[in-house]
Amino acid sequence: MALRVVGVDPGLTRCGLSVVDVAANRKVELIDVTVAGTPPGTPLDARLLTIADAIDAWLDKHQPDVLALERVFASANVSTVIGTAQVTGVIILAAARRNIPVALHTPTEVKAAVTGSGQATKAAIGKMVAKICRLDEPPKPADAADAVALAIAHGWRGAAVGSNASASESAARTGSQQLTAAQQAWIAAEASSKHRAARR
Amino acid sequence: MALRVVGVDPGLTRCGLSVVDVAANRKVELIDVTVAGTPPGTPLDARLLTIADAIDAWLDKHQPDVLALERVFASANVSTVIGTAQVTGVIILAAARRNIPVALHTPTEVKAAVTGSGQATKAAIGKMVAKICRLDEPPKPADAADAVALAIAHGWRGAAVGSNASASESAARTGSQQLTAAQQAWIAAEASSKHRAARR
Repeated sequence: MALRVVGVDPGLTRCGLSVVDVAANRKVELIDVTVAGTPPGTPLDARLLTIADAIDAWLDKHQPDVLALERVFASANVSTVIGTAQVTGVIILAAARRNIPVALHTPTEVKAAVTGSGQATKAAIGKMVAKICRLDEPPKPADAADAVALAIAHGWRGAAVGSNASASESAARTGSQQLTAAQQAWIAAEASSKHRAARR
Repeated sequence: MALRVVGVDPGLTRCGLSVVDVAANRKVELIDVTVAGTPPGTPLDARLLTIADAIDAWLDKHQPDVLALERVFASANVSTVIGTAQVTGVIILAAARRNIPVALHTPTEVKAAVTGSGQATKAAIGKMVAKICRLDEPPKPADAADAVALAIAHGWRGAAVGSNASASESAARTGSQQLTAAQQAWIAAEASSKHRAARR
């Protein structure tokens, strides 16, 4: 039984939306990926409404077990951070209305999980996403590839948190004894295969 | 015919919600005020859902002409700015779903409009709100009074913008010749009565 994960790379202009199935043996199936969003000149209320409609349709269509979302930091790009945070509010609300748990992951966590390096470039992420999903080339634009990477990273970790805490912070708080058996199996599998994944 | 304004002072812990009717002669009628929100320990998705349900019910009950919202700055309190921005995303979406225009105002604009000073204290704002609305004492907590002040400030300005721009930026962009006759009358009334309001 695979875990169905929707990944969201949030943004007002380009909001990457993915859905992947992750098997207990870490095999990943890319189900769908797209980019929602609106041109920068569009009024803010119309932008948020467009993205809300897109995520509502995406969740209703794909019925995920969990939604993985990039965590927004107050120290991020000052010109876009408020808009990006507003998008995450709308995304989290859409999941909450459907009782879908939300997991927040930092870009560093995602890069490390997918490529083995927390400092991976956009190109390296796209390349690894293509390899993991057995695609001829990376999903485009980069926001789409990032949304897939987020979903993969989450599926391989198997941790879900409904707070602004990152998954790793949550794991530290709750302790591994509170993880489900499947989550513990994933973590063990991830640890044993990490250098293999990085070498692929 | 009065303008019905919902004012929102956004926050995850305390989200002030007000509704006022502002007549063309600047007379203000406080219709209702409350505070929504959730304790800090609550999961983020549950917090946003609680606030979304509260604003949905508030807008459906009061059917405002416009929603006035405090503008969030990236330079604000780092520990709360992301959560506050997420709340504003949810608030703006609720208005957009009902075709209610959203106006963003800075705290300085609101303080200046209501007290005559952009540096007014919380206590001074609460006192002026009570005077303007003919209340025996300021609405409590301060978030409630701030939500009323926002609605009053917007009603007295009469400008609405559906973007991250502040009302004053929008006015500068569009030029006063694009304001409605009622808006121009308000602005003229505001200019002639500003020192009176400040003295009250």
